[in-house]
Amino acid sequence: MNILVVGSVALDTVETPVQKVTDVLGGSATYFAAAASYFSPVRVVAAVGEDFPLQELDFLKEKEVDFTGLQIRKGKSFRWAGRYGSHPNDRQTLLLEPGVFSQFQPTIPEQYRDSDLLFLANIDPELQLRVLEQVSSPRLSCCDTIDHWIRTKREVLLRNLAQVGVVILNDSEMQELTEELSLIKASKVVLSRGAKIVIVKKGEHGAVMFTRNAFFSVPAYPVESVSDPTGAGDSFAGGFLGYLAQTGDFDQINLRRAVVYGSVMASFTVEKFSVDGLKELTCDQIEERFARFKQITHFG
Amino acid sequence: MNILVVGSVALDTVETPVQKVTDVLGGSATYFAAAASYFSPVRVVAAVGEDFPLQELDFLKEKEVDFTGLQIRKGKSFRWAGRYGSHPNDRQTLLLEPGVFSQFQPTIPEQYRDSDLLFLANIDPELQLRVLEQVSSPRLSCCDTIDHWIRTKREVLLRNLAQVGVVILNDSEMQELTEELSLIKASKVVLSRGAKIVIVKKGEHGAVMFTRNAFFSVPAYPVESVSDPTGAGDSFAGGFLGYLAQTGDFDQINLRRAVVYGSVMASFTVEKFSVDGLKELTCDQIEERFARFKQITHFG
Repeated sequence: MNILVVGSVALDTVETPVQKVTDVLGGSATYFAAAASYFSPVRVVAAVGEDFPLQELDFLKEKEVDFTGLQIRKGKSFRWAGRYGSHPNDRQTLLLEPGVFSQFQPTIPEQYRDSDLLFLANIDPELQLRVLEQVSSPRLSCCDTIDHWIRTKREVLLRNLAQVGVVILNDSEMQELTEELSLIKASKVVLSRGAKIVIVKKGEHGAVMFTRNAFFSVPAYPVESVSDPTGAGDSFAGGFLGYLAQTGDFDQINLRRAVVYGSVMASFTVEKFSVDGLKELTCDQIEERFARFKQITHFG
Repeated sequence: MNILVVGSVALDTVETPVQKVTDVLGGSATYFAAAASYFSPVRVVAAVGEDFPLQELDFLKEKEVDFTGLQIRKGKSFRWAGRYGSHPNDRQTLLLEPGVFSQFQPTIPEQYRDSDLLFLANIDPELQLRVLEQVSSPRLSCCDTIDHWIRTKREVLLRNLAQVGVVILNDSEMQELTEELSLIKASKVVLSRGAKIVIVKKGEHGAVMFTRNAFFSVPAYPVESVSDPTGAGDSFAGGFLGYLAQTGDFDQINLRRAVVYGSVMASFTVEKFSVDGLKELTCDQIEERFARFKQITHFG
């Protein structure tokens, strides 16, 4: 099965206590596609400016990522700059220049409209809705968001939840969206809005998945040194949906495996800057880390 | 096997956004003994004042908890008062009156000196050292501490780590003790000081165990409403050492099971105020929650 992702392809400037990188490849659709490409064909809808170094995407094209839907428009590309403190959760946005992304209209190419799986990255919820209208009947659709949209477009966002099967958020977003501190209570709110599956990303504390009848919890992969946490959430979503697209099996046990593959891909991402951790992986490396997850959580 | 615990038996006043309870049974040795008593015989060394309502301990005496080592001294009992915010981690100490505990000298009764397992709760590290000198050769010894002792008696504490096999701390204490934000790096520091096993309690995010050759991670039990987080850490230690004493098996896989039993007992504790969650459990309830842990972490 294939996956359509609608999100951003951007240039990031990232500062950590150890290093600074400038105008490196970033964006939610980029991280998602890089992670998912190890499992399934990916189709991207996004917009960049004429200044975008398109050759940076070559490694993804080699991995069956289809950029037919990438709009190249007059103007500047989306740029984000951020600084991380000594703790990965301690993040400060220094610059946010949407550039051509502020006019982005997600027109889905004809040949993408029958996509099997759909990932709506953290774009404006009204644009997410427009995508949902254009993609005929995906086997599974999934959305993410950010605190900005929760604050400014809460109602549209909540209506979208009813339309997508899977909601992937981080813990603070879940709490903000539902005004519930307990993730169990918060997940019930989101499930009651129509979502079938709620996944909460907790960074270094792993991830949890709630469905109507089941609960699953997995720790994070023990990464000794986090270089750059940017893109961890989108890589998680890429590993999760990528594995589901590859297997075509949406049963509980396979959903759980998909959450673990999501965690595996996020762990590779944070070990390096930009998408460097996702550029040259082998299937063996991915499988090895999946096996290690089993090993570190097993208690007989 | 039996377990000796040296810690506090106290009276707590706890305020949460929902309820307030005054002068209820508390103290690290109390919570530890209450949890461990479901698995093994426990011996307590602590000190209370003449004002202490000794009948409050009757439910523990019925469960084979031996209070021969409880010193009853002229003066007031240890009293602690705290307030929790809407998030369990948000805790404020309102009052700390050590009373007779400030003069506490842990004299280990003759018949306790051959104890099989030893738990040094969060008392002054110099007193922990004095206990270690009196207990001849426990099969396993384990210590906890709090931020106060890390700040004021760091060197004694670090020397104790070399003498005990197991160190149980929470995440912020680990970070403070080792000045390492990464728990993986922090655990290496503690292991290099001589500890064989390092367990880090992460509250709602579960617990991790580090040994020289292995790493284990388990999420917290999904408790929908936390009533009172007081004593969760000591209950964890009680379940952990209680299970090890019951089985007498310190292999990796059994250590992991013990961590899960620790998490089970902590989950019962936080569901009610004071030690109420540990008063009338059945073995079936404990086993059921252990089985649920397997179920929520399993991914085939």
